[in-house]
Amino acid sequence: MYEGAVQDLIDELGRLPGVGPKSAQRIAFFLLDADKEDVQRLSDAMTAVKERVKHCRICGNVAEQEECAICRDSRRDQTVICVVEESKDVMAIERTKSYRGLYHVLGGSINPIAGIGPDQLRVRELMTRLSDESVEEIVLATDPNLEGEATATYLARMLSTLGIKVTRLASGLPVGGDLEYADEVTLGRAFEGRTIVS
Amino acid sequence: MYEGAVQDLIDELGRLPGVGPKSAQRIAFFLLDADKEDVQRLSDAMTAVKERVKHCRICGNVAEQEECAICRDSRRDQTVICVVEESKDVMAIERTKSYRGLYHVLGGSINPIAGIGPDQLRVRELMTRLSDESVEEIVLATDPNLEGEATATYLARMLSTLGIKVTRLASGLPVGGDLEYADEVTLGRAFEGRTIVS
Repeated sequence: MYEGAVQDLIDELGRLPGVGPKSAQRIAFFLLDADKEDVQRLSDAMTAVKERVKHCRICGNVAEQEECAICRDSRRDQTVICVVEESKDVMAIERTKSYRGLYHVLGGSINPIAGIGPDQLRVRELMTRLSDESVEEIVLATDPNLEGEATATYLARMLSTLGIKVTRLASGLPVGGDLEYADEVTLGRAFEGRTIVS
Repeated sequence: MYEGAVQDLIDELGRLPGVGPKSAQRIAFFLLDADKEDVQRLSDAMTAVKERVKHCRICGNVAEQEECAICRDSRRDQTVICVVEESKDVMAIERTKSYRGLYHVLGGSINPIAGIGPDQLRVRELMTRLSDESVEEIVLATDPNLEGEATATYLARMLSTLGIKVTRLASGLPVGGDLEYADEVTLGRAFEGRTIVS
C-alpha cells in the first residue's frame, strides 16, 4: 500500500495486541510527524526492556536484578504468598494497597487446549519455596475464569498435603456495579459467599 | 509502578495516539514475552521511518525518494489533481480504485483556533503546480467536517480565478447505512444532491 518504510512500520505495529490496521496506520503517521528524539526514546525503551528485564529468581515477577523489588523488601510479610498468573496481576494487587505479603507468578494458567499443564507453569518453584517453613498462608489469586479456577483447584489439592492454610480471593458483586446487571454465576457466588453483618 | 525499563516502556507507549495506560501495559508485556528479533524489527522500523521517509517534492505525500510513487507514475492522468488534507487520505482514495489522477497533500486543514491558516498548509505549492497549463480539474477532497469544508471553500474561491474546473466530493448517505440512523445534516445533503435515475 504505502512505500517501503511506512508500510513496514504499519505491518510491525499491526502485530501488537489490540492494534488493528487503522490504529497501526494512525500510530505510524503519528511517529512520522513526531520529534526524532521521541521516536528514538520509544525505540530504545523497547530494546532496553528486552535487554534489562528478566524474571525474579524467587517469585517469577519482572525484575531488573536477580530478585524483584518485592522479594528484596524485608519489611513485607514473609509468611504469606499470593499466587497469581502474570506479573500484571502483581501490579493490580499492589495498587489496592491491601496486601503486604509476597507473590508467586505462575506465568499463566492450566489450559489443556493450549497444551499448558502444571509443568509449563512455575509450580515446582512454588513447592520449593514452601519447603522453607516460614510460609503460613497461600492466597490463590488466579483469574476468576475457567482456566484460573482450574489452576486454583489444582494448586489447592496439591497444597492441602502440606498443612499450610490455603485461601482463594472472594467472588461476588463488583463494587459500584448494579445487582440487576450481574450475571447469574456472579450473583450466585455472591449469595454463596454472603457475610454476616449483624 | 514497575521497575525501571518496564515502566519506561509503558510511559513511552502511553504517548501514542489511541493507546491508554491499560493498552500500554498490555503491549509492554507482549513485547517482554516476544522474540528479541521481533522487538528489534519493530524498533528498527520506527527509526527507519524517521530516517528514510520524507515528503514528495511535488505533492507532499509521504515518499522515500524525492518524488512519490504516484507523481513518478507517468500512466496517471496528469490533468486532474485531487486535494486532500493528509497522506492517509491519499491511501483511502487509492483503495477505492476509482481515481487515476494526481494528488496534492495540504498537510492539514484551515483551523483558526489551532492557528493554522493557508500559509501553514501547502497552498502556495498547489498554486505553483497549477501555473503549468496541463491541469484541467481540481477535486477538493478535504474532510466533510467544519475545518475541511472551510478549507474547501477557501480553495474554491482562490481557484475560481484560474478558470480551472473545481469539484468537491459528494456528500450523502454512506453506502450500507440505514436512512433512519443518518444525521439531519447528512440526510439534508443527500436530498440536495439527489440524482436523476430515470
